[in-house]
Amino acid sequence: MASLSCSPTDLAQFFGPNTTNSTAAATYLCDQFTAVSNKFVDTTYAIDTTYLLFSAYLVFSMQLGFAMLCAGSVRAKNTMNIMLTNVLDAAAGGLFYYLFGFAFAFGSPSNGFIGRHFFGLKSIPSSSFDYSNFLYQWAFAIAAAGITSGSIAERTQFVAYLIYSSFLTGFVYPVVSHWFWSPDGWASAFNTNDLLFKSGVIDFAGSGVVHMVGGVAGLWGALIEGPRIGRFDHTGRSVVLRGHSASLVVLGTFLLWFGWYGFNPGSFNKISVAYATGNSYYGQWSAVGRTAVTTTLAGSTAALTTLFGKRLLSGHWNVTDVCNGLLGGFAAITAGCSVVEPWAAIICGFVAALVLIGCNKLAEKLKFDDPLEAAQLHGGCGAWGIIFTALFATEEYVSEVYAPGRPYGLLMGGGGRLLAAHVVQILVIAGWVSATMGPLFFVLHKLNLLRISAEDEMAGMDMTRHGGFAYIYHDDDDSLKPGIQLRKIEPRANTPNSN
Amino acid sequence: MASLSCSPTDLAQFFGPNTTNSTAAATYLCDQFTAVSNKFVDTTYAIDTTYLLFSAYLVFSMQLGFAMLCAGSVRAKNTMNIMLTNVLDAAAGGLFYYLFGFAFAFGSPSNGFIGRHFFGLKSIPSSSFDYSNFLYQWAFAIAAAGITSGSIAERTQFVAYLIYSSFLTGFVYPVVSHWFWSPDGWASAFNTNDLLFKSGVIDFAGSGVVHMVGGVAGLWGALIEGPRIGRFDHTGRSVVLRGHSASLVVLGTFLLWFGWYGFNPGSFNKISVAYATGNSYYGQWSAVGRTAVTTTLAGSTAALTTLFGKRLLSGHWNVTDVCNGLLGGFAAITAGCSVVEPWAAIICGFVAALVLIGCNKLAEKLKFDDPLEAAQLHGGCGAWGIIFTALFATEEYVSEVYAPGRPYGLLMGGGGRLLAAHVVQILVIAGWVSATMGPLFFVLHKLNLLRISAEDEMAGMDMTRHGGFAYIYHDDDDSLKPGIQLRKIEPRANTPNSN
Amino acid sequence: MASLSCSPTDLAQFFGPNTTNSTAAATYLCDQFTAVSNKFVDTTYAIDTTYLLFSAYLVFSMQLGFAMLCAGSVRAKNTMNIMLTNVLDAAAGGLFYYLFGFAFAFGSPSNGFIGRHFFGLKSIPSSSFDYSNFLYQWAFAIAAAGITSGSIAERTQFVAYLIYSSFLTGFVYPVVSHWFWSPDGWASAFNTNDLLFKSGVIDFAGSGVVHMVGGVAGLWGALIEGPRIGRFDHTGRSVVLRGHSASLVVLGTFLLWFGWYGFNPGSFNKISVAYATGNSYYGQWSAVGRTAVTTTLAGSTAALTTLFGKRLLSGHWNVTDVCNGLLGGFAAITAGCSVVEPWAAIICGFVAALVLIGCNKLAEKLKFDDPLEAAQLHGGCGAWGIIFTALFATEEYVSEVYAPGRPYGLLMGGGGRLLAAHVVQILVIAGWVSATMGPLFFVLHKLNLLRISAEDEMAGMDMTRHGGFAYIYHDDDDSLKPGIQLRKIEPRANTPNSN
Repeated sequence: MASLSCSPTDLAQFFGPNTTNSTAAATYLCDQFTAVSNKFVDTTYAIDTTYLLFSAYLVFSMQLGFAMLCAGSVRAKNTMNIMLTNVLDAAAGGLFYYLFGFAFAFGSPSNGFIGRHFFGLKSIPSSSFDYSNFLYQWAFAIAAAGITSGSIAERTQFVAYLIYSSFLTGFVYPVVSHWFWSPDGWASAFNTNDLLFKSGVIDFAGSGVVHMVGGVAGLWGALIEGPRIGRFDHTGRSVVLRGHSASLVVLGTFLLWFGWYGFNPGSFNKISVAYATGNSYYGQWSAVGRTAVTTTLAGSTAALTTLFGKRLLSGHWNVTDVCNGLLGGFAAITAGCSVVEPWAAIICGFVAALVLIGCNKLAEKLKFDDPLEAAQLHGGCGAWGIIFTALFATEEYVSEVYAPGRPYGLLMGGGGRLLAAHVVQILVIAGWVSATMGPLFFVLHKLNLLRISAEDEMAGMDMTRHGGFAYIYHDDDDSLKPGIQLRKIEPRANTPNSN
Repeated sequence: MASLSCSPTDLAQFFGPNTTNSTAAATYLCDQFTAVSNKFVDTTYAIDTTYLLFSAYLVFSMQLGFAMLCAGSVRAKNTMNIMLTNVLDAAAGGLFYYLFGFAFAFGSPSNGFIGRHFFGLKSIPSSSFDYSNFLYQWAFAIAAAGITSGSIAERTQFVAYLIYSSFLTGFVYPVVSHWFWSPDGWASAFNTNDLLFKSGVIDFAGSGVVHMVGGVAGLWGALIEGPRIGRFDHTGRSVVLRGHSASLVVLGTFLLWFGWYGFNPGSFNKISVAYATGNSYYGQWSAVGRTAVTTTLAGSTAALTTLFGKRLLSGHWNVTDVCNGLLGGFAAITAGCSVVEPWAAIICGFVAALVLIGCNKLAEKLKFDDPLEAAQLHGGCGAWGIIFTALFATEEYVSEVYAPGRPYGLLMGGGGRLLAAHVVQILVIAGWVSATMGPLFFVLHKLNLLRISAEDEMAGMDMTRHGGFAYIYHDDDDSLKPGIQLRKIEPRANTPNSN
Repeated sequence: MASLSCSPTDLAQFFGPNTTNSTAAATYLCDQFTAVSNKFVDTTYAIDTTYLLFSAYLVFSMQLGFAMLCAGSVRAKNTMNIMLTNVLDAAAGGLFYYLFGFAFAFGSPSNGFIGRHFFGLKSIPSSSFDYSNFLYQWAFAIAAAGITSGSIAERTQFVAYLIYSSFLTGFVYPVVSHWFWSPDGWASAFNTNDLLFKSGVIDFAGSGVVHMVGGVAGLWGALIEGPRIGRFDHTGRSVVLRGHSASLVVLGTFLLWFGWYGFNPGSFNKISVAYATGNSYYGQWSAVGRTAVTTTLAGSTAALTTLFGKRLLSGHWNVTDVCNGLLGGFAAITAGCSVVEPWAAIICGFVAALVLIGCNKLAEKLKFDDPLEAAQLHGGCGAWGIIFTALFATEEYVSEVYAPGRPYGLLMGGGGRLLAAHVVQILVIAGWVSATMGPLFFVLHKLNLLRISAEDEMAGMDMTRHGGFAYIYHDDDDSLKPGIQLRKIEPRANTPNSN
């Protein structure tokens, strides 16, 4: 396509000497085109910011999804506790990510390991980073902390929670996102100097950067704390400690699905980008839509696979298992969602469901207790997603979304360099998170700040720490009128549809 | 308004022979305008895709709304069952609509009855269909299945559910949407060759295509299964089997309201379309906003009408009835939302509430049991919406949204051709869905695959088929203190808050 | 930047007499630029409407947030009642705001006190008001009524509710919004004739216009009704009447947070506006993002402050208090969100949390009972937000968002005129709402239409007025099989918070 660039000199020459003032005419016209060009710049900013902000809002809604999923998956006596941690993930995350998390993650220029600019949003906005970018990245940061909170649910002291969450959101996660997503990161696919294995890591929306980080952190927390009381009986047999509300689980899962459309397609950050293909209808807007489709198909396939897989294994149709399978499919497709074909997303989801079932079997065997299956789901399926991307990324999409001439998926004929980079990613994330969060949880453990007492655990944290039980379905109004005889309002309330 | 089309030949003539190189100057300038024009094409795709995708996300959130509405409307013992069906509507729908549903619905060119292209998203994206269109249409397809699941709730085998849902989403619904929404459809208002009654059917967002389809399918399912045990006592008296959570009902209703803003205004697909009216501020963006307003007013009026109507009939202010009335208003306005005046939307909602009350009375009389009132609401109010559109569509809006010179509403002076087309739509949809879903449910019934056993129905499907009760508000912590007593794992799950 | 304005006369002169037809050439070219310019107008409308409509949908989702927050904060026996009021806020609000509320608020030209045009959306769309503006403002109007419903929860007759809600949404609130937000309003910062104190009131998204209005109305309602039975015992000791579901409280709070991104950043109405700063990347899109950030930081800080403050005061980590603190931070930042620096938002949130704690202490002392703390939260924190804006609004942002040369924050060196205007705003809102809603509640009280009977209050309104209890977790299936013994399930469900 013709590009918009008006040269007064060229144009003046065409007009030539017989034109009264050829330079003035040419300059006048080219100024008009400059004005048009500037207006397109403004318009593009308006569109892209609209796109990014609403995507950020969707990602934020995942925090509500996590809160409901976690609440429904724990026993009623710990509902207030887990929900409070989810609210605080968002709130404390907001403050810490503003103060230094965003700077660590995207401060540019950097040494490739950790950013050192943009503390407290200094120097924002610039032509490449605006407030909307901060908001979007903040919503990602708190998602990582939300994953971990699931792993250590129902037995962790609230103060330990405050410490690890701040550390994860403010430091551990930002460093990882710097490596893989900042243009300065040593393993980033956006690095313009030196690409890892001449490829860089393609972790588009963060199967590794977000999900594996949250999952591995949760793994260490849950491992050091040990299982909940009663999770494995004295003979070592696994006992399911069912969550208290399947409705909240389904509510949370659907909200996460909803929010994932901000997480994956939103990771393009911009939608108004034309691709140089010669087809006027084809550009980033199309790639964004395709990403929403691959996300949908991976989750859908994982859900169906889990439905039938679990039916074979356990004999019933289990909605909470299906929900977890669905989320496993999403966690897996997150890395490659923008660079694979829709049919590949179906493979991704199918395998993700099997990975989750396998990881859960393994966890049970090892007596590892993760109330939300978060380590298995986000760690296991996240890792699979990283490998999947290295196998199925297509040449065309890598070329469009990243840059032409890059290595792509091994099975698509793109060689092994992307796979090599992705294996490095898995090892490096596992290593970094283990080396930071592992010691942190261990020190908290040694200081008796990690796990609550057995008495508190039996009674439930809501009663002992959070001011009461989360639910009161029957008002005990009589207690408010000491001395007056018990009013019998219960039967009425209890049997509304009887008689 | 002047249109953007630069002709180098014309321009060169104006410059004339004295200009040094008039052709070069003219070509240079016109190339700039071509570049501008192309950039507008790109920009428009970016805007329209942003608009369509976020609308699709809103429509998807209706699936969460259906899940919560259904869950709250059934008895606690069947909560897991109904929610699982809602999750699977979305997931199985994703796969089937990808594999062939979308192809049946929008594969072009076609014979007018069923599409034959785009299987597995082949040949997508093209200049007229992109991934975002697929996502939007998928979200519609699963809504139809969600409606039907309500009608047959609390007594249907899960395997029957899997079968009918796939059939409906993958075949029955796509064919109907092809007829009325594909440019190739025989009754479509977008058909450029041959309009039904020189009008075509104006079912803008699907009072017929989605709501009547789901409602009629549900009608046959519920009819063939018969009412739930206890719904009518031995004297034939109607017994209300109240849902277990009004909070979930209200949550679901509000989510559906929220999502309906994607369903109705989103059905424009594009927002960046200028209307040739001479008013620069007036274009499709304004029609989109008007559609959101008519939707709001119809639902609001139906809710208020139901509130006072039910107060007169039953003596109390009933929130779940108001929720159903509200949804009835939405289902009715869906056909005509883009082509009627706001004041007409108020009439639409008022009558819709009366239609719903009437249909419910009739259902009770006929001993027809639909736990969600889905057949009455989506079938009855949907049919009213189709008639309403044929009465109140205005000339101006039909001209802008569809094409100038088309027939419009009978009461607005537009003659009877639109009404004739709409009567045909009602008959054809009722006929097609009856002819496909009726036999399907009947065969399932004959094969004993449709209804669960009386024992299972009394006990609740969650216990017998889905691994346990949905709620556990009281943990049986005593069992966790080894040595005290025999641990009762199963009973716990069975009688969640028994002592 | 060069502006896009092509003059055929000027251009023709440059071409000069040697050009064959210089006028035709110049006109031809300028017509092309006019077409480009018109297309930008259309494009901008499409972008801005997309932005505004989706913001409106987010604000609407706050109504769901209010419904869930209110439901969770009241006792189970009044759940249906409060949710019905929330549904009707939206529905009745839709009708009344369409019929006259919008006309009172934005009918232009006006006398500065109340609008008199646009009844029933007459003369809409125009170049300055479109249907999307109506929808956005409607979503604001119903939020105000939603606030008030919290204050008078659990003891108000439904008919009183219908009356005050219509009056508030249809008259009291529209008048206030006319004063401060209509270009004709006497205190509006958009008034082009005569600015109050040469400044006008900067209440960007409505800490005063929405939150104080709702809060003060609630204050009078709750004051005139008196506290719920049992809220203060016979010795005058405060007794906490805890809400029945912390899960619903957290759900509602997160939904409000989600929706607030429509409320605050959305209040720009347009996103595609360039600022004359010379930086092409800087425009309203950046200010919109900054507003989302200040909103996030104020809420986050208030939540954390409340967490630690309440921990010190009450000894436990309380999730519902944290939720209220969070919302207090949002209510406070709403006035100044677009004109303060992110660091100032942290101060705003910190003080808002203290204000809320203080107001709650005061309310307890005065035996004022507001089940949702709505008067304290929206009234108190709203008033603080108005003062805060007058202290911290920066010169740069006031200049960009409003107009250059305006007074700005006292502490930022902008003098006291903005503060003076804001003190007037607080007094005028408190006065106007007291003068209208106070008498209304008083008359209702005198007519015995305000408060329910003590019997009804003890039994709960759901049983006596709304057709039954909101929840049925245990189906009394036995009742369906006459002859079988009554199952004793009541005691089980009763014990959660007893003993």
